Amino acid sequence: MVSDRNFQITVINGNTCVPMTHSIDQAAQQVRSPQTQIVTVQPKAGPESIECYYDEYLAIPGILEQIVLDQTAAGFILACWGDPGIEAAREITDRPVIGIAEASMYIANMLAAKWSVVTTTHRVRHMVEKTVEKTGIGDRCASVRTTNLAVVDTEHNRAATLAALVDVGQMAIEQDGAEALCLGCAGMNGLDIALEEKLQVPVIDSVTAAVKLAESIISLGKCTSKRLTYRRPELKSMQNYPDYMQPQSLIS
Amino acid sequence: MVSDRNFQITVINGNTCVPMTHSIDQAAQQVRSPQTQIVTVQPKAGPESIECYYDEYLAIPGILEQIVLDQTAAGFILACWGDPGIEAAREITDRPVIGIAEASMYIANMLAAKWSVVTTTHRVRHMVEKTVEKTGIGDRCASVRTTNLAVVDTEHNRAATLAALVDVGQMAIEQDGAEALCLGCAGMNGLDIALEEKLQVPVIDSVTAAVKLAESIISLGKCTSKRLTYRRPELKSMQNYPDYMQPQSLIS
Amino acid sequence: MVSDRNFQITVINGNTCVPMTHSIDQAAQQVRSPQTQIVTVQPKAGPESIECYYDEYLAIPGILEQIVLDQTAAGFILACWGDPGIEAAREITDRPVIGIAEASMYIANMLAAKWSVVTTTHRVRHMVEKTVEKTGIGDRCASVRTTNLAVVDTEHNRAATLAALVDVGQMAIEQDGAEALCLGCAGMNGLDIALEEKLQVPVIDSVTAAVKLAESIISLGKCTSKRLTYRRPELKSMQNYPDYMQPQSLIS
Amino acid sequence: MVSDRNFQITVINGNTCVPMTHSIDQAAQQVRSPQTQIVTVQPKAGPESIECYYDEYLAIPGILEQIVLDQTAAGFILACWGDPGIEAAREITDRPVIGIAEASMYIANMLAAKWSVVTTTHRVRHMVEKTVEKTGIGDRCASVRTTNLAVVDTEHNRAATLAALVDVGQMAIEQDGAEALCLGCAGMNGLDIALEEKLQVPVIDSVTAAVKLAESIISLGKCTSKRLTYRRPELKSMQNYPDYMQPQSLIS
Amino acid sequence: MVSDRNFQITVINGNTCVPMTHSIDQAAQQVRSPQTQIVTVQPKAGPESIECYYDEYLAIPGILEQIVLDQTAAGFILACWGDPGIEAAREITDRPVIGIAEASMYIANMLAAKWSVVTTTHRVRHMVEKTVEKTGIGDRCASVRTTNLAVVDTEHNRAATLAALVDVGQMAIEQDGAEALCLGCAGMNGLDIALEEKLQVPVIDSVTAAVKLAESIISLGKCTSKRLTYRRPELKSMQNYPDYMQPQSLIS
Amino acid sequence: MVSDRNFQITVINGNTCVPMTHSIDQAAQQVRSPQTQIVTVQPKAGPESIECYYDEYLAIPGILEQIVLDQTAAGFILACWGDPGIEAAREITDRPVIGIAEASMYIANMLAAKWSVVTTTHRVRHMVEKTVEKTGIGDRCASVRTTNLAVVDTEHNRAATLAALVDVGQMAIEQDGAEALCLGCAGMNGLDIALEEKLQVPVIDSVTAAVKLAESIISLGKCTSKRLTYRRPELKSMQNYPDYMQPQSLIS
Repeated sequence: MVSDRNFQITVINGNTCVPMTHSIDQAAQQVRSPQTQIVTVQPKAGPESIECYYDEYLAIPGILEQIVLDQTAAGFILACWGDPGIEAAREITDRPVIGIAEASMYIANMLAAKWSVVTTTHRVRHMVEKTVEKTGIGDRCASVRTTNLAVVDTEHNRAATLAALVDVGQMAIEQDGAEALCLGCAGMNGLDIALEEKLQVPVIDSVTAAVKLAESIISLGKCTSKRLTYRRPELKSMQNYPDYMQPQSLIS
Repeated sequence: MVSDRNFQITVINGNTCVPMTHSIDQAAQQVRSPQTQIVTVQPKAGPESIECYYDEYLAIPGILEQIVLDQTAAGFILACWGDPGIEAAREITDRPVIGIAEASMYIANMLAAKWSVVTTTHRVRHMVEKTVEKTGIGDRCASVRTTNLAVVDTEHNRAATLAALVDVGQMAIEQDGAEALCLGCAGMNGLDIALEEKLQVPVIDSVTAAVKLAESIISLGKCTSKRLTYRRPELKSMQNYPDYMQPQSLIS
Repeated sequence: MVSDRNFQITVINGNTCVPMTHSIDQAAQQVRSPQTQIVTVQPKAGPESIECYYDEYLAIPGILEQIVLDQTAAGFILACWGDPGIEAAREITDRPVIGIAEASMYIANMLAAKWSVVTTTHRVRHMVEKTVEKTGIGDRCASVRTTNLAVVDTEHNRAATLAALVDVGQMAIEQDGAEALCLGCAGMNGLDIALEEKLQVPVIDSVTAAVKLAESIISLGKCTSKRLTYRRPELKSMQNYPDYMQPQSLIS
Repeated sequence: MVSDRNFQITVINGNTCVPMTHSIDQAAQQVRSPQTQIVTVQPKAGPESIECYYDEYLAIPGILEQIVLDQTAAGFILACWGDPGIEAAREITDRPVIGIAEASMYIANMLAAKWSVVTTTHRVRHMVEKTVEKTGIGDRCASVRTTNLAVVDTEHNRAATLAALVDVGQMAIEQDGAEALCLGCAGMNGLDIALEEKLQVPVIDSVTAAVKLAESIISLGKCTSKRLTYRRPELKSMQNYPDYMQPQSLIS
Repeated sequence: MVSDRNFQITVINGNTCVPMTHSIDQAAQQVRSPQTQIVTVQPKAGPESIECYYDEYLAIPGILEQIVLDQTAAGFILACWGDPGIEAAREITDRPVIGIAEASMYIANMLAAKWSVVTTTHRVRHMVEKTVEKTGIGDRCASVRTTNLAVVDTEHNRAATLAALVDVGQMAIEQDGAEALCLGCAGMNGLDIALEEKLQVPVIDSVTAAVKLAESIISLGKCTSKRLTYRRPELKSMQNYPDYMQPQSLIS
Repeated sequence: MVSDRNFQITVINGNTCVPMTHSIDQAAQQVRSPQTQIVTVQPKAGPESIECYYDEYLAIPGILEQIVLDQTAAGFILACWGDPGIEAAREITDRPVIGIAEASMYIANMLAAKWSVVTTTHRVRHMVEKTVEKTGIGDRCASVRTTNLAVVDTEHNRAATLAALVDVGQMAIEQDGAEALCLGCAGMNGLDIALEEKLQVPVIDSVTAAVKLAESIISLGKCTSKRLTYRRPELKSMQNYPDYMQPQSLIS
């Protein structure tokens, strides 16, 4: 039996939308183990929601800043389906960094022969496909289905979101062969139970999936590899960024 | 915070080698959470160790029998790197079934850009590659490296096993670009710490990885999809198999 | 011209359904060359029909037993579309083992730019896709189309089977771009001619395809490679299996 | 048992090298079944040997002409590893056309988990890889290994050819994981037996493999699909080609 | 700034249809830079239009002859979507050879996340897919859509061609996710502007794309690699071809 | 002939290293056409050089800012091999955006059957492989070879850089089958000629390749697709970013 060591996991909402940070926190708190403390934060700078590449790239420095400034957490969760900046996050700390996208896909892969991702606006299809691709677990992904809901609407309008997810979920199941679904947006957290009842297939809430996987890795005592790709950044000047973001600060 | 519900996980050694069952049990006990009870079993029939397709196919009915007869466990772990019969295991129960192979690969994928599997005899390369392929997570697999150790030797001769793993692990790191390693045999459990010290990359013990992922899925309350591929077996006669293995027994 | 050497091919129905064994035998006899003797058998234990992974894994030991006990045949045919246990079959003998699935795909590949597999219940789609994948010949596979017929119904109800195959065959041709079809079940043998007339594309009866390819390989005097993957099983105890299934019996 | 119908197979040497046509004929005659008559021909125009794309493209019209002018054969074999022009050959006749490259790969695939192609000059590597790719059976191809022998030398200098094949064959087996070899040049016919003795893995003579597969398809009564890709050429003027090569001549 | 060196680009219509040669020439002239002279030619022998493999293979020797006989051009464009014989063309000269198919795909790839090819008869789908595959740039190809127009009709009946392209273009955009289109036939040149207006996505005229890319490579002073695959053809007899087509003529 | 319309191309050095901006400018000026004006800039914020994901993600907002603020250019070049932020760049303008990585790969693909990328530190291998993957043109990429030179050293120490490139270039050619090379760093501009002399294969300077392709697309009058993925960013608050970076500023 693993020791009762207590630890903190910092969950980073990739969006600067405060209500979403609260709902992500609530979802994470509900599934944490007794030894885990959850702290949920959001970037100081960046888009209210991530719905295109421009949003994502402007969000990442702020996401990384949350990691740089956090000396307490035993591990981090990137709470935006897209796992924005995850490779850089792994460079700047050896504490585990888990993305909610990858977490949901691993869980789905253990429960179903084929699964689909159901998500927000039509335009993010390409970004979602790239997320599946970078995780390297696409062989059993049946499809990406979009509702055309805005990210903030998934938070504010739960009934409409649920209805839209039932629609595209059914299409994924009947037309694409999905046997489970990943909720492809942090804002959709908590809708898994209702969706499972409607669709009769496992539905993975990506935030809660990530909490359990982060706890798993921390309990196993494993750290991010510093062998090559995720080595600390090389020493150099990072012009017009604060001192604590300079590579030499990361290393000291 | 998730409730303190206690549950049992049954770990099924795919081999009929008793000492390996004991060592797998020990490894699993060490990482279980307080709410988890671990019970480790082995098939009544089958090979002492799984080292070729013949071994694997003759082991699977006995592995499935352990699941059929187990009404207690909240979930199952297939403790043989190859996850033998995992698709069938998922058909005959809706309780989660996790393979140690897939578990180790998901964990490695969260810690390193590229990882390799280090394992036993040269002849199992093809089987190991097929296991990576069926899991659908091969894109970031740098290589499969074999030590040519027999499975039972990994259990009986720890020093030689460690030395051999250091050798092939180094080759995986230096020649194939691996930045983490999965221990590709249940018998190698517990060697991860020593290997990490020697090689300075994360090394994943597949048995302990599977325990944490099984706990994760059970805690999240998720069940295997019964939508299509993993539906209960169709009703029919299963000639010369015991009554409890007949499809109608599985369903009642 | 090859010599007139006579030889026997043992065709192993993967299912324990006697009428299917008879119909497979009939199909095989019709296309055998003068020098070939066909003997068709079925496992002593296993499912009446193979329609899920559970069926398949419980069928395989009985299929392998037929090979172990057969000292006469010059080669073997696995007569179940799925080629169940074929890797193990190739380990335990150096006489050629041909699967009806692979045989039908090679023939289709020589006749059409793209081909589809038409088969039984919806749930076997995943198994069929895995069979295509393990054979390594999927690039020109246009689709897998299922009729949702049970395997035994393909045997008992020929008119309904033909009608269902015409339906899904037309969908494969018109929607998926198939230019030939493989009959994806041993029980469908003999329906190729009627289907060709209806659909005007080549339709491959998998059983007869396998007979001709088995004869081809035997005539060429070729044996299964014993280099690495298909070496004889390693010596070890195979608990609760009969003496003749022990690895040392296979080798002596 | 199939009827005793006699038929002719025309084997088309892709090269204009007469001694190679003779040796191909000899190889083909040795393995033909009693009911088969083998006629081996070569193009009237084209390169002495095919060793680059220029050679191949200038050879193809002459190869196709042999088919256009042949009203007797029940089927055709393209005897150049590269199966030059095979898609066009399948357009201009509904009698089966088998390439020696594809035939050797299908046979190897039934005997070994992984196989390599051993062939002539270094520069043909790209062509050989494209041949594997167009056949759609590359998943189990371990490697392409070149001897740097000229095609005509494979015919004229058998001892040197054998020695070179042993060398590259050993590299394929030991370094690439090959468990069988395909002889990747029609001129290498007949060297399979000696090579098997030296290397102890199955070695496939591509010419004889094609003879048996052509016989198989003809015996099964199967024809090339005329559904879409391999339809007869559309009616149009084929400037500066003889009358019998005009599309309207093909159709009448 | 690059010098004002003047050079000639020879555009080779792959078809022997004179009006198409004229229209290709017109399209190419319109986009040439001041320093470029465009000369458009067609083979002396070959099909009026390329619509199947037979057409293509009989066209290639005549296309290559145009290159062999041309001592003036600084580079060549193969103006048939299929880039027929391009590998051989690159063997017989070190002056750059650009295919209109590849050129259109590179341009589309710089303007859109996903693009489709819209083209002529249904039967060329397989050829078009192979062209995408040989270029090695298929990952972002959303689909191939065919109008079932004959090649010559694209030239003669512009209104019908435009209407058909609007139809299949819309399907590509709405059903397949295309965000740009490549005009998949040299005869469609000049229709890009009208199609862009109708469909509101970038439409690439393959002929004009190739002119700009040929100018680019020539300006950069780059030549075809003579390292291995595209080396000059080996010396040998090319039976029944004119002297200037013999390999020794190419080299002297 | 295209009209003599003059236009400006803005080349954005992804790094904040001033000497590199100068050398990139020089290279670009040398190959521009008479009608083109080249302006080379660098981000106000970001790393001196991009050598890991952290560097890249902190560079991207500054790169995008250069585009947002530039009303003059007819098109943009991202001058860092990695094409950092290119998807976002394409969202915020409909003027063409060309990456030097993709440009070099398209040119190499037109000159050689297989090509390799030669680049800087060992740790960027993963980033470079991802760049090839996102461009969608990896099929003919033979390998990525790293010199372990820092990016700034490629600028400051030309002799050592050339020597290192010769070394790894030779390995790419001899061991990996490369027949051309892409210089995988903006700082390596201008070394192509010397390297071609040493290695006798085409070597592509990525900066100059991009200039010619940008001119090509602008001359053709083509714009980035605004259909779906590259639509303008959705209206929303972009917290703590300047007004001109807010989505509503981009759109007005």
